[in-house]
Formats: sequence, C-alpha cells, structure tokens
Amino acid sequence: MALWSGRFTDSVSEFTQRFGASLPVDRAMYVQDIAGSKAHARMLSAQGIISSQDAQQIEEGLDRIQRQIEEGEFTFDINDEDIHMSIEKRLIADIGEAGARLHTGRSRNDQVATDTRLFAKERCLHLMRANVQLRRVLTTQARAHADVMLPGYTHLQHAQPVLLAHHLLAYAWMLARDFTRLQAAYDAADVCPLGSAALAGTTYPLDRRATAAELGFSGVTQNSLDAVSDRDFLLDLLYACSVCSMHLSRLAEEVVLWSSSEFGFITLSDAFSTGSSIMPQKKNPDFAELVRGKTGRVVGDLVALLVTMKALPLAYNKDLQEDKEGAIDAARTLEDCLVCMAGMVETMTVNPRAMADQAGKGHLAATDVADYLAKRGLPFRRAHEVVGHLVLLCEQRGCDLADLSLADFQAESPLFEDDIVRELDLQAIVAARTSEGGTAPGAVAAQMVLVEQRLSSDEAFLAQRGA
Amino acid sequence: MALWSGRFTDSVSEFTQRFGASLPVDRAMYVQDIAGSKAHARMLSAQGIISSQDAQQIEEGLDRIQRQIEEGEFTFDINDEDIHMSIEKRLIADIGEAGARLHTGRSRNDQVATDTRLFAKERCLHLMRANVQLRRVLTTQARAHADVMLPGYTHLQHAQPVLLAHHLLAYAWMLARDFTRLQAAYDAADVCPLGSAALAGTTYPLDRRATAAELGFSGVTQNSLDAVSDRDFLLDLLYACSVCSMHLSRLAEEVVLWSSSEFGFITLSDAFSTGSSIMPQKKNPDFAELVRGKTGRVVGDLVALLVTMKALPLAYNKDLQEDKEGAIDAARTLEDCLVCMAGMVETMTVNPRAMADQAGKGHLAATDVADYLAKRGLPFRRAHEVVGHLVLLCEQRGCDLADLSLADFQAESPLFEDDIVRELDLQAIVAARTSEGGTAPGAVAAQMVLVEQRLSSDEAFLAQRGA
Amino acid sequence: MALWSGRFTDSVSEFTQRFGASLPVDRAMYVQDIAGSKAHARMLSAQGIISSQDAQQIEEGLDRIQRQIEEGEFTFDINDEDIHMSIEKRLIADIGEAGARLHTGRSRNDQVATDTRLFAKERCLHLMRANVQLRRVLTTQARAHADVMLPGYTHLQHAQPVLLAHHLLAYAWMLARDFTRLQAAYDAADVCPLGSAALAGTTYPLDRRATAAELGFSGVTQNSLDAVSDRDFLLDLLYACSVCSMHLSRLAEEVVLWSSSEFGFITLSDAFSTGSSIMPQKKNPDFAELVRGKTGRVVGDLVALLVTMKALPLAYNKDLQEDKEGAIDAARTLEDCLVCMAGMVETMTVNPRAMADQAGKGHLAATDVADYLAKRGLPFRRAHEVVGHLVLLCEQRGCDLADLSLADFQAESPLFEDDIVRELDLQAIVAARTSEGGTAPGAVAAQMVLVEQRLSSDEAFLAQRGA
Amino acid sequence: MALWSGRFTDSVSEFTQRFGASLPVDRAMYVQDIAGSKAHARMLSAQGIISSQDAQQIEEGLDRIQRQIEEGEFTFDINDEDIHMSIEKRLIADIGEAGARLHTGRSRNDQVATDTRLFAKERCLHLMRANVQLRRVLTTQARAHADVMLPGYTHLQHAQPVLLAHHLLAYAWMLARDFTRLQAAYDAADVCPLGSAALAGTTYPLDRRATAAELGFSGVTQNSLDAVSDRDFLLDLLYACSVCSMHLSRLAEEVVLWSSSEFGFITLSDAFSTGSSIMPQKKNPDFAELVRGKTGRVVGDLVALLVTMKALPLAYNKDLQEDKEGAIDAARTLEDCLVCMAGMVETMTVNPRAMADQAGKGHLAATDVADYLAKRGLPFRRAHEVVGHLVLLCEQRGCDLADLSLADFQAESPLFEDDIVRELDLQAIVAARTSEGGTAPGAVAAQMVLVEQRLSSDEAFLAQRGA
Repeated sequence: MALWSGRFTDSVSEFTQRFGASLPVDRAMYVQDIAGSKAHARMLSAQGIISSQDAQQIEEGLDRIQRQIEEGEFTFDINDEDIHMSIEKRLIADIGEAGARLHTGRSRNDQVATDTRLFAKERCLHLMRANVQLRRVLTTQARAHADVMLPGYTHLQHAQPVLLAHHLLAYAWMLARDFTRLQAAYDAADVCPLGSAALAGTTYPLDRRATAAELGFSGVTQNSLDAVSDRDFLLDLLYACSVCSMHLSRLAEEVVLWSSSEFGFITLSDAFSTGSSIMPQKKNPDFAELVRGKTGRVVGDLVALLVTMKALPLAYNKDLQEDKEGAIDAARTLEDCLVCMAGMVETMTVNPRAMADQAGKGHLAATDVADYLAKRGLPFRRAHEVVGHLVLLCEQRGCDLADLSLADFQAESPLFEDDIVRELDLQAIVAARTSEGGTAPGAVAAQMVLVEQRLSSDEAFLAQRGA
Repeated sequence: MALWSGRFTDSVSEFTQRFGASLPVDRAMYVQDIAGSKAHARMLSAQGIISSQDAQQIEEGLDRIQRQIEEGEFTFDINDEDIHMSIEKRLIADIGEAGARLHTGRSRNDQVATDTRLFAKERCLHLMRANVQLRRVLTTQARAHADVMLPGYTHLQHAQPVLLAHHLLAYAWMLARDFTRLQAAYDAADVCPLGSAALAGTTYPLDRRATAAELGFSGVTQNSLDAVSDRDFLLDLLYACSVCSMHLSRLAEEVVLWSSSEFGFITLSDAFSTGSSIMPQKKNPDFAELVRGKTGRVVGDLVALLVTMKALPLAYNKDLQEDKEGAIDAARTLEDCLVCMAGMVETMTVNPRAMADQAGKGHLAATDVADYLAKRGLPFRRAHEVVGHLVLLCEQRGCDLADLSLADFQAESPLFEDDIVRELDLQAIVAARTSEGGTAPGAVAAQMVLVEQRLSSDEAFLAQRGA
Repeated sequence: MALWSGRFTDSVSEFTQRFGASLPVDRAMYVQDIAGSKAHARMLSAQGIISSQDAQQIEEGLDRIQRQIEEGEFTFDINDEDIHMSIEKRLIADIGEAGARLHTGRSRNDQVATDTRLFAKERCLHLMRANVQLRRVLTTQARAHADVMLPGYTHLQHAQPVLLAHHLLAYAWMLARDFTRLQAAYDAADVCPLGSAALAGTTYPLDRRATAAELGFSGVTQNSLDAVSDRDFLLDLLYACSVCSMHLSRLAEEVVLWSSSEFGFITLSDAFSTGSSIMPQKKNPDFAELVRGKTGRVVGDLVALLVTMKALPLAYNKDLQEDKEGAIDAARTLEDCLVCMAGMVETMTVNPRAMADQAGKGHLAATDVADYLAKRGLPFRRAHEVVGHLVLLCEQRGCDLADLSLADFQAESPLFEDDIVRELDLQAIVAARTSEGGTAPGAVAAQMVLVEQRLSSDEAFLAQRGA
Repeated sequence: MALWSGRFTDSVSEFTQRFGASLPVDRAMYVQDIAGSKAHARMLSAQGIISSQDAQQIEEGLDRIQRQIEEGEFTFDINDEDIHMSIEKRLIADIGEAGARLHTGRSRNDQVATDTRLFAKERCLHLMRANVQLRRVLTTQARAHADVMLPGYTHLQHAQPVLLAHHLLAYAWMLARDFTRLQAAYDAADVCPLGSAALAGTTYPLDRRATAAELGFSGVTQNSLDAVSDRDFLLDLLYACSVCSMHLSRLAEEVVLWSSSEFGFITLSDAFSTGSSIMPQKKNPDFAELVRGKTGRVVGDLVALLVTMKALPLAYNKDLQEDKEGAIDAARTLEDCLVCMAGMVETMTVNPRAMADQAGKGHLAATDVADYLAKRGLPFRRAHEVVGHLVLLCEQRGCDLADLSLADFQAESPLFEDDIVRELDLQAIVAARTSEGGTAPGAVAAQMVLVEQRLSSDEAFLAQRGA
C-alpha cells in the first residue's frame, strides 16, 4: 500500500477503525442496548437456553456497566467499533463465560435494530411532550389576548381583520397534526425485531413475544429479512420532524416580521433576543432566525436517509450504519426548536395598538362591502367590481374605505344604504365571521374548546407511556 | 419597460399570463372542482342564501361543462389562469347571474384547498389499490415457489440460506407499511376546508358540515387561516410516495441483480424487458431500472414542496400554487411503478437451480455449526472462533464446509460428533429457523397467513371507499 | 398475467410502451438530434464509411423531417419510444437503405448523450442571457435611484443606513456568480461523446474530432464508458439553477416585504401584480411569490438527479433516462423567473420617502457614535457599551439618537463634543462608509464600474457564442 | 415563564446559551480566526488606526492563545457563544485595552465570513489532494492490469468486452471533473470580505487589499451587503462534495458487486473488509458500503444549506450560523471516503480468470458480428436483425456465439465467410475498438497519457498552494 501510506498519517488500521466505527454516535444508545440485553438474557434463561445463574450474572454485570457509564467511569475504545461490542466485550472481561453466552440466538443486526427502535420511541415521546408544551403556550397567549385584532394577511398584504387568538391557534392545529405524525413514527418503531438474528431467524427456541413485552413493544416483526433492514421508522421520525420544522419556520418567520420596526407587533423578551457586536442599538430575533434556519438541517437529515436507503438489496447492508446520526440530530434539533419557540412565545410582549393601527390600513372592509351588496341581490362577481371602484377612489384620495361618505358609496351602487357604516367597523367585521372555524370571537372560543380537547387527549397518550 | 421588452418576444401580458397560470396543471382537477361547486351551490340553496332555481341552473350548467370537458369540446384559455376561473367564467357566460352567485361565501383560497384535498384522496386510493395488487402478486409468487431456496444476503455476501417465499414476503411487509402511510395521507386530506373563505371565515350562514358530508369528507377544518394555507396532506402523500418508491428501488435493484448473467436467478418476460439498438443479444431489465431511477423524481417532488413551504407567513401565499404539480407527478409516477413491478414480478421466471447452486457456496452452514457448539455448552463467542478456523481451512482447500470430514471438525473441537452432518444440510438449516418471522417453511406459512389477513383488511378499506 | 391484467385497463404493451417511453420529454430535443445525425452522416461519408450519395440522402431526409416537425406535420408515435427512434424510423421509411446506414458506428447511448449535451449548452446560453438582462435592470434601477437611502438590515432589524443602489447591486453580484456557475455547466457539457458507441468505442474509423467541431463542441470525451454514463453536466446545470433560484428567492422575499403595507418601500406595476377573487382591494405580489416558491421545484430537480445517479454501476443504465425532464424543467423555470424578476424590478415604483422614514427609526447612527468614541481613544468594546446606554435612554423617552441633546451624550462620556451632531446625520453616515465595497456614494460608483465591466465581459462571452 | 420553566430542567439562560452557541462547531476554525485577527491588527497599525504597540501586543496575545488551544490548555466556555468571542474575550482579559481595540473597523459578520472562507479554502485543498491520490491509485491499478479483460456492462447485462484499465480510468475522469468543481469552490471562497463590517462597510481608512493579500486571498469582495450574507462558496463546496460522493457511490457499488460470490472479480484485502458477529465465514465489503451509504449525508448537507438560504432577505441573518456544520461534515466525510477508496482499490486483488469467464458469456461478440455484416454492405439495422436470430439460436442450444459453425452463420446471411471467426475472439473485439476514447489497448494507452497529464497539472495546482 505504498501509494496510500505514503500520503496519510494514520496507519491503515487506525483509519479503518475510525472510519468504520459508529461508537461516537451510537454510544448515545447505551441505555437501550443494556435494556435489550437484559431482556434477552432473562428470556434465554426462562426458555432454558442459558442457566438462571448465567442470566443473573449477566444482569448484574450489565447494571454495573450502566452505572459506570453514567458515572463517567467507563472508558470507550474506538476499536470496539460500536456500543454493542463495547458493552459485550467489557461484560465478558468482567464475568467471563456467562457474558460470552449473552449473544446466543441474536446477532448484531437484530440487536442494533432493537436498540434503535427503543431509542426512536423515546425520542418521539420527548418531541411529543415539547410539542404539547408549545401548544399550551400558544393557547395561553391566545386566551390572554382574546380581544386583540390584527390584519389577516394573504400574500403578505392586508386582507381581512382577524383575532390574534385565531392567528395563534392556526399554529396549534399545525402542531396537532405534527403530534399525529410523531405518533405514527412511534407506532412504526413500536415493533420488536429481536429474534430475527442476522437475517433468517434463529434455531433457538426464543420467546420473542416475551422479550418484546418486557421492552415495552406492542408487537414483534414478522419477517426476519425485513426486520434487520427496515429503517422506515426512522424515516417516519425524520419526516415528522421535517414537517414540524417547516411549521416552526413559518411561526419563526412571523416572529421575525412582527418584531421588525416596520411591523412592531411584538417585542421579544431579552431572554429570547440578542445584541450586536458592532451595533449597540440592535435587539435581534436571533433565536427565531435559528429556528427558521435549522429547518434546513432537519430536511437535509431526511433526504440523507432516503438517499442512503435507495436501491439497497436485502437484507442488512453496512450503509444502514448511517441511519442513526441524522435521526438523532433531527430529533434533538427539533426538540430544541420547540422548546425555544415555547419560551419565546410565552415571553413575548404583544403590542395591540400597532396591530390595530395596521388593521386600519388597506381597506380591510372591502370583502364585507361586497358581501353587503351580494346579500342585497347583486351577484357576488358584480359586487366585487363595485367595491373595486370604491377602493380606487380611496387610493386616489389617500384614505380608507371607512372614510368615504354614504354619497360616495351610493354613487357606485344604489343598493347602499346608511347601514353600510356598520360593515366598515373592523370589530363588526371580525364578529360577523361566525362560520365554523371563522375568526368571530364565538367561533374562536368554540375552536379553543377543540384545541384543548385535543391537547388533553394528547397528554393522556403521553401519560399512558410515562412521558 | 424598455430593457425588458427589448429582449423578449412575449408581450408582458402574454408572459405574465403564462407564468402565473396554473391551468395546465390544475385542469386535471376539473372533476373535483365541479363536484365542489355543485355541493357548495346546493348548500347555499338549502341555507336560503341563493334560490333553488339558481342552484338548479348552476348544477345543470356545471354538468354541461363537465360533459364538454370530457368530450374534448371545452376550450381552455390560459388567460383564465386556473381551472376554477375557467369553469366559473364559462358558467357565467352560459347561465348569467345565477352563475355569478356561485362564488358567494367562498374564495378561491378555500375552493383550491377543497379541490386539492378531493384530488389527493382519490390519488391515495389509486395508489393503495396498486399497492395491494403488487402485494397480491408477491404472495402468489411466494406460494408458487414455496420450496425454492436461495442464499440470504447481508452485505451482498452469502449469509444463510432462506426461502424465496420469505424473501418475497419481506417486500409485502414493506408495502403494507406503505399502505399505512397512504392511509395517513388519506386521513390528512379527508377534512373539508370549504367555508374558510379567503382566510377568516365568512359572514354567510353556511352549513359547512353539509357540504363536507356531500363531498365525502369525514370532517371540517377548524381554523380558517390554517385551512387555506395547510398543505400537510400533500406532504404526507409525497412522503408516502417517497418511501414506497425507495422500497421499489430495492426490489428493482434485486431484479436487476438477479437477471444478470452472474446471478441468473430469474428471467424476465419479454413484455418486461427490452433489446438494444446496437447489441442484438441484449435483454435488458429496462423497466426495473426505470422504477429504480424514478425514485429520484419522487424524492425530488417531496423536497420541492418542503422547500416551497419553508418560512411562509400566514395565510395563503401564491407560493402554494406550486403545490400540485409535484404531487400529481409523484402519485402518477409511483402508481406506474407499482403497476410495472406487479407485471414484472408476476411474469418473471424463477430459476431454482441457479439459486440452489449459489446457496451451496459461501459456507452458509457456518452459523449453524457455531450454534451446534453453543448448544453443547461452548459460549457463542468461542464457538464463533472455532468455526472461523474451519472456514479458513475450507478456503485453503477450496471447498465448502459440507465437504469437511468429521475428523476435520473434531480437530478444531471435541464437541463435534457425527450428527454435525445434519447441520450442514441447507434444507435442514432453513427448516431449523422456526422462530417467529424466521425462514423455516412453517414459520413462513404462518407469516403468509398474516400477510393475507393484512391484505384482506386493506382491501376492505378500499372497498368501503368504492376503490 | 391473470392478476395484473385483471385489474388494469391498459394492455401490457400499451402500459410498457407508455411507461418506457421518453418521447414526451425528449421530443423537445429534435433539433439537437437532427443536427447530431447530420454531422454524423457527413463524417461517415468523409471517412468513406458510407457513400456520399447516402450521406446526401440522409441529410435531405433529415431536413425534411425537421421542417415537418416545425410545421406540425410530423406525427409522433409513442411506440417509437424516443425522439431518436422516431426520427430514424421515419427516415428509413422515407429514404430506405441509406437511412438504415445512419446508425453505423454509433449507438443510442452516445447519441442520447450528444443530444443532451447540445441541449444543455443551449439552455445555459438562454439562462445566461436572462441573467445578464436582470443584472442590466438592477444596474439601471440602481443608477436611477442613486441618492435614495433606506435602512440596511441585519436580522430584519434596522442596522445602518445604506443606499438603495448598494442594496440592488448586491443582487447583481449574486447573479454574476450565477453566471460563472452557468459557464461551468456550459463547459462541462461542451465535450462531444459521439463515437463512444454503446460503451466501448467502435470499430469504424470515425473522425470524432470532425463531428465534434461541426457540432460546435470544444473537445471530445476520452473514455467511452464514462462518456455514455456521465451526467455531471446536467447536475452542474441543475446546481447552477438551484443557487440562482435561491438568490431570486431572496430578491423575491424582499419584493414581497417591500410592497407590504408595513414597509411600503415599493409599489409594483399592475403588470406584475394581481387582484383577489374575493377581496376587491388587494394588489398582490403574486409573481414575486411564484418566483420564491419555484425555488422548491428547482432544488427538487437537483435532488432528483443526484438520487437517481447514486450507486449506478458502469456504464449506461436505463435509470439515466430520467435525466432530462428535471433539467428541462429547472432551466425553463429559472429562465421564466429571471425574466419575471427583470420585468418586475424594471417596472416597480420606488418610494424614497417611505424608505427614508424607516431609516430615521432604530438608532441607525449607533455604530457611528461608537466609532466616534473609539476614534477618540476609547477601546471599541467600551464605546459599544456607552452607546448601549444612550440607546436605552432613547427607548425610555421614545425618541431616536438624533433627538438627544449634547448634555445627554456627555452624561455618558466626556469624550463627546458638539461635532457629535455630524455623526447623527444619516446622509453623513452613509457618506462615511468609504471602504472598498462600502455604501458611500463614491464607493458605490466605483462598484458600479466593476459591475458594468463584468456585464460587458459576460455579454462578450454570449456574443461569441451567438446568444 | 411559568409554563416553560415548569417543564424543562435547563434554566432559560442555560438553554438559550446552548441553543444559540456555535462554539462547538466553529471552534474548529480557531486557526483561521487567529490568522484573520492578526492580519487585521497588522493592517490597523499600518494604517495608523491603532498603535504599533497595540498591534504587537495583540499579535503576541493571539499567538499565546493559539498555543494554549493547541496544547489543550484553553478552556472554552459555551457562554462565549462562538470562537470569535472566546478568543477576543480572552485576549482582552490577557492584554487589556489593546485587545479591546482589535474589533475596530470590523464586525462579527465580516469576521465570520472571512474565517469561513479561509476554512473552506483549506478544506478544498485537502479534498483535492485526496482526489489526486485516488486517481493515482486507479491509474496504478490500471497499468498493473493492462491486459485484463472483463465484460463491459450496460443495464448490468454483458454488452461488449472491455479492458479493466479502461473501466478503472472511467473513474479517473469522473474524479478529474470533481477536481474542477473543487477548484471552482476554492475560487469562489478565495475573495476576502474583511472590511465589509456589519453590512455597510466602515468609516475607518482600512486597507482591505493588504489584509486580503496577507491572508492569501486573491481579491476582495465588492459589495458589503453581499459580502456578509453570501454563502455561495459553501454551497459550491457542498455541491462538489455531493457529485464526488455520487461518483464514489458508483465505484463502491461496483466493489460490492465485484466482491460478491456471484461475480468474484476481486478480493478485498483484510484491511478493507470485516467479519460478522454471528456468521464466522463472512468477509464483508463494509467499507465500500459505508462509502456508498455516506453519499446520503453529503447530499443531505447540500440540501440543508439550500433550504436554509431560501428566501433570506439581506443582509446577515442568524440563519446563516447554520452554514458551517454541514460543510465541515461533508468535507470530512468525503475526504475519508476518498482515502478509504484509495486504500481499498490499492489493496484489492483482481481475479482475471473470473472476469474472463464472465466475458465469455452473453454473446459479447454480437455487435461485432453485426458490424461485420454492415461493413459488407448490409444496412446496420438489418444486420442487427440477423444477429438477433443467431443469438436466439444460441439461446436455444445453450451455447455462445463463438460456438456456432460457419454453416449456422451462413444460414442466416450469405455475407458470412470464414473470416467471421476472427470477429468472435474477445481479444480481437477489444483490440478493434480503436476509436478515440475506445477500449482498444492502444486507445487506452493514449487515454492514460491524458489522465497522467491532467494529474500532473492538478498536482501542480496543489503544489503552488502548498498543499
């Protein structure tokens, strides 16, 4: 290997050890690996495959190792390649032959798959908890500002006035759907592959359902080839994270807009904004920007695993070792982002005056004036044209619709009467949108009940799983 | 606009019409648009918002337009921008004022969202049907080759012998999970946004639940801002398509490998292979390669919508017009790929001899020899080492484990007795993997029952929805 | 095929014809295919491989076919699979044996690669032209508003005042880099693979350099296996499109922000904005939103081809047929977006007053006040703190730095003298940023010279290539 | 913050410190940060902005800090947020006021951009070096097996025989194009933004060209707004890495195929393959699989930054902090993959016999037989049909074309004479493909010269830059 070694400073074995090792990533799964091994050993013993003394020694040995890891007294060696080998090797060193019996009837392939599924389930629960938390904050803010109105936007143009509560609850619904996706990822992970061995099942009389039950799985996988090469549950997790990140990027974008000088709708707390190294006056929405920017890495993590999985033949291939880092990164990133947004939204100050001022600009009553005519018999498409003329008139005069006189209205259509003035009041406009899911205070109150019901049922789901 | 117009041949209005129009894409949704409008008109009439005569005229007018479109007699005009305006404009031209009343209490924003959800639901059902069909083909082939054995692979190296049925059923499980994801996408789409109007709800006394029920939706959206800007259901569809495409790319990869000269495991039917323009002898697995290659476009479609959605403020933004083309493309692509794989797998010829020949190479009994020792008390890790030496011996002699003598075995470990010969028989090795989900004939038969049960329940789901 | 045919309406051959055909996509390349075939025929004749009569017949036949296609008289048949076979089959039907000699010494593999490279080169030139055009518009607007000032933003917070010209030219530099990337894509495509045949070269005494030269290629490929399976040039094009789209999404975002009620910095022309179907007052920046949203599809197209190419063994695989649609889509999309932004920026009205009003908010002089102290000997980090106190004072009083008295300043630091007032003038602040690339009028004028120089040299590049 | 703090264990400030900090990532850039600060200080002094004593103190202080970092004696504090603040704060603590003057005329925005560009340039050079190294290994192997022949594949079907050298050199050309892309990324990074300050340039009389020159940059940026928000150079690096990873995934796929039992074309060295925890006989191409699988993460890193950059308004936004981690990951990953493939290819054993055996299967002479007829006047399309019949005959008899008698040939066409036998010899077939870039030994030798020339010029590029 003259060419190679002539240029690189690592020895070949140093290089391949480092390049092939997953230990720096999968050591995060030591809890899952030890739990899986203990359940496996207990089952082996219950089935008479190993003796109960061996099982007990294994269990005690593993407990000791877990304590050492948690107390920082376990020395990881990159030569052990992964967390599974690190622990098993140490176990054998500690307790001898009993330890060497632990790997009976299993393979690293099903062991890795089991650990990863346990880990994914835990990550899902963490994310769901943070998701619920952000929804709680949103509903609290919505309730605290029940009568605050701001312009509703389409195309970032003023469209119609809406309640701030209505606006905030829109995000609660997005997050509720994200919770559903996280549940789907949880369910996908909640099937135990242990006992699939390397790829074909095993000749030992394992009780797969017993191990699965002990580890808290709802069921067992039904095809050993699929079981050792299936990473759909990680894709489901990465996808759930991607969509939720996208939702947060929308909320973060609005936080950035709303805290700008031009909007001025909110003021972020000092705890969730930062200064500048050169501009002493700056109060930057850094954290909202980070949340927005981190959408990229989460989507990138999803793409990475889809690319890695593409065109892999059955069953296990080493490519799959690349599965964990992205999933860990995406889950941790999203959890941080959820926590960050919860703190930011909870501590922001709303400026109702600035919102109301803007709601007074842009002819937000226009739709209602058109509806007024339509309700008096003018086909909506024609009514739309009439109001178009009125708006043009306002633009020419530099005023808003509310500033026009009755005569101005009647010059465009004889259907206008003096009750048109009621249609121009923003409060009245909001109050009139009583359709289910609309922005009228009553409709929003009804909506809030549904949001709370959903939150309660989601919290019950978590409580049931101890999260 | 001197600079601009000096260089480009389109007039400005020609350019912007073309650039802004979604008609070439969304005309595929004319059925949904007409169904939505009819349901809306009927509800408006039932609520007394428009007269029953108007509603009837609208309904008849829309039916007429639908017939014209289906008979190719409807002239689409790019100036109408989208399918919604094309149809409404024609309706007004045909029936006058009644037509102009159709848009009462709705906006293009909720109309588009409704159409797209109806369309997505339909696409999901089509995909689920094709998914079920491919699973039927896989199980049929599995049953037809119940006793065929091939090498099971990890790292594309021979690992342990498995039944072909077991191998094929691995894909049935992947597809079953894909069906679940398609159901999730279906459920996500199955909520009606009609009545959310532009963004804030409407002042008309709509009966949103009536329209939703008539259109076959299971419920109505609960926040109008969210309703007009939510495209999660398309992401869910795109994601379900992406993972299923990835699964098909794995199956396609194996078809390509297996029909190579080196493997020779299968022969594709002429219907599902092609020749070469220059090499008269070629019989290429073109269709499997296309299926594998098309994974790219489906994943690309998913990424596209995630990128588009990132950081959009509430509520509707024109960026969302980009939502449909990718979803249509991904769904059509995947449906074709599922159909293609079904035909390909159904018509392929399996070459059991070639599979068996390869199963005889690569020491596929090695694990069982190690298990033999482990069952006789040698810790598995030690047994693994003993077999490593035996394999080395074989490699030196250029033979397989089955060719060694008892003396060879006993030279490595006194635990070997003459019953070791039973462990070296591939049929016996397969038969011994009786663990749940393992490759033993009985285990595979049990697995087949579960696969069939799942298929039946999935078909019932489709039947219930008329698909 | 009982299962398959029982469910699908297409016959197998109809299905596979449609599924396998690239004709709907590659018919866009008929010009390139005919040019390539003519050059090939001429070279075959020059080398004595076919007769000059054959070559002449071929050339005339191809010219006739091209006319028929352009006049809409050529009937494409999906059974011909691709544009290459469509044309060749028709040629043989028209001129007989001479036509059947055209495919001598080439394969569809090198033919497709050649056509695609010619097509990619043409697309690059179109994109470069549109890129140059948008830069011209940006510089024209920059020059037209040479003295307009607006707040410069970081974190969407007011930071320091900048010239609008400086802001617009930032995009000119992005586009200049995009031009460089398009040139790289052009160069990557500019190598002729014709003569590589199916994968291994050919036994005919071809003159590859002659064909390449006639087709306008700068060189010939040097490895036939690589030549028929290399799609790097399309990736380079897709990547160049992706980055340029991302740049346009930034410009489009600013157009959306700037045309909002809150900013009010610009007013879009009617030609480049649209109304609402329900809200008569709306004037929406739809086209900017579309440009922003289309970034998704372009990035998706890039990802698609990267996924498709992953892990393909040498040489040609049918997966590669998926290469063209995304590249065509991305190039057309980006060209439209460039054209659209050029028209939009050229026709927008700038509102200098609104920009200046905002520049007066947010203590934009803060950095200069700190620099004032630093220049008088206070270490910058300390000066930063002093100004922080002054800003706090302003916030408490609800005023801007410019509203403070000299006493206020001196209360914080004795270094302040009455010349501090000069530092608070926004014009002066802009004028002081004279560092190379800074926003001072002189620096911007110098920058403009460089932008123009670059534009000229880019235009010369295009002129040289007839674009 | 009752809700938030009730659930999370971090205090708010601990959380935001951790979430907002880039220190764990950017501390990798301490060398660049210190180099940049030293150059800045020297220039400030040369321009008379700070005293030469201050500059000297700064320089010595920074050198001391660099030594401490390298000797592991520097304690990083997450509260310092990033490497820039860590170092500056320590410098001020160490040397007092002089240290506080360092930040004069610069901002973290241009400082970060400068550091990142220096880092990107260094990464590019490392990647180019590893790229050259792998090409050297490929050419060495090509030369060492100059007469080895294997089947050339299209669609993974045997197509025509090719030289192994030709096959290996295909990858050398891919890598040469990758080198070009890395050069483009290097050039994109090779422009110095220092002096752009926060966004608008600075009021200090900086000599930007002096700093740039001292840091080894080829030029300075020309627009301060663009300079602090431009990350194109990282995208260029990520893209270059993505395409190169894709190329390596193709090579890795072939290594996996070739080392399978079915192909048996190569045997990997023990150093670059691994065993199994359960199957004692396995020798897995783990490292090739890892290289193939890691393509996912590199493409994911590219997507991540494209998503992050989408729709960001000018100038600096905190989203950009997300730029570095992916670029560092992609560059490190690709460098490892290049090194790994170099070692793997250098140490693999080629099995010429297995390659030749396979070349004898699949009628690889078919094209040449068709060409034989075409050269005797039969139009190629007709010749193609004749050979199709001959192949069919072989398939029926279970033999290869070389096994047919002259009579068999003549039964299909009278143009066959006894010299047809020469066309059936695989060596002759290879030798006949003498077209430029073809697989004939002479053509491959000529190709090798070009590959070497390119390598030499690429090495010269690196040597010039001290890499």
